[in-house]
Amino acid sequence: MKESGRKQGALSPCAACKLLRRRCAHDCVFAPYFPADEPQKFASVHKVFGASNVNKMLQELPEHQRSDAVSSIVYEANARVRDPVYGCVGAISSLQQQIDSLQTQLAIAQAEVVHMRMQQYGSSSNPGTVDMVVDQANVGESLWSC
Amino acid sequence: MKESGRKQGALSPCAACKLLRRRCAHDCVFAPYFPADEPQKFASVHKVFGASNVNKMLQELPEHQRSDAVSSIVYEANARVRDPVYGCVGAISSLQQQIDSLQTQLAIAQAEVVHMRMQQYGSSSNPGTVDMVVDQANVGESLWSC
Repeated sequence: MKESGRKQGALSPCAACKLLRRRCAHDCVFAPYFPADEPQKFASVHKVFGASNVNKMLQELPEHQRSDAVSSIVYEANARVRDPVYGCVGAISSLQQQIDSLQTQLAIAQAEVVHMRMQQYGSSSNPGTVDMVVDQANVGESLWSC
Repeated sequence: MKESGRKQGALSPCAACKLLRRRCAHDCVFAPYFPADEPQKFASVHKVFGASNVNKMLQELPEHQRSDAVSSIVYEANARVRDPVYGCVGAISSLQQQIDSLQTQLAIAQAEVVHMRMQQYGSSSNPGTVDMVVDQANVGESLWSC
């Protein structure tokens, strides 16, 4: 994605400079990440964070981290535009609820496995012959000595 | 929390107006949520979103939703200050990984339950008589024909 903002030539301003109505300098910090053909991408970021703040945030990062930072900033901005009250914190809350639910289901399934193992042991050791009882007793020892 | 910014009297500016060095009007949109005794709370929000953007975001919401909006904005701002590259999108990514892991563990546990049920049934119907052998054959068919 980097440098894609320059695809249309050096004279074409990036989406950020177009929106801000300013000259897009050759070292514009936005240009590599906000190409002119994706105006909405910068519009959300500008509305939520403000161009000046995003400029500062990007300038404070080394270049190799800026692309990831822009992706997360765009994600956050879009989430806030969609949900002005909770933004992407709404997604965090929903994911945490999913985790709680999965942990409960997992605990139930694991408890069932333990219960069935005990049941299986109990039912398979029903004495049919004296030999079977002795065998089962040995198996029981190895199971519980783990 | 609402109106807590006014606890120290009408003349004491809220944390936002203090940082912005402006008069804190009686209808200041920040005052109910950014009390003077929690300056860091507004500082992070101002650094990440900018006072002007947060002002607009709050003005666009009905009053009963502003407290939740401020909580989520403060959460996002603090996450971005802690992790300037991923912000709270880092938390989303981590929660999604946890969900993937829990779903895998749950599938394994549930498969084990199914496997043990089949085993349990098989072992409990170990042929002692000819009748039992016939039963097994019938059950086998009904299980595998699903």
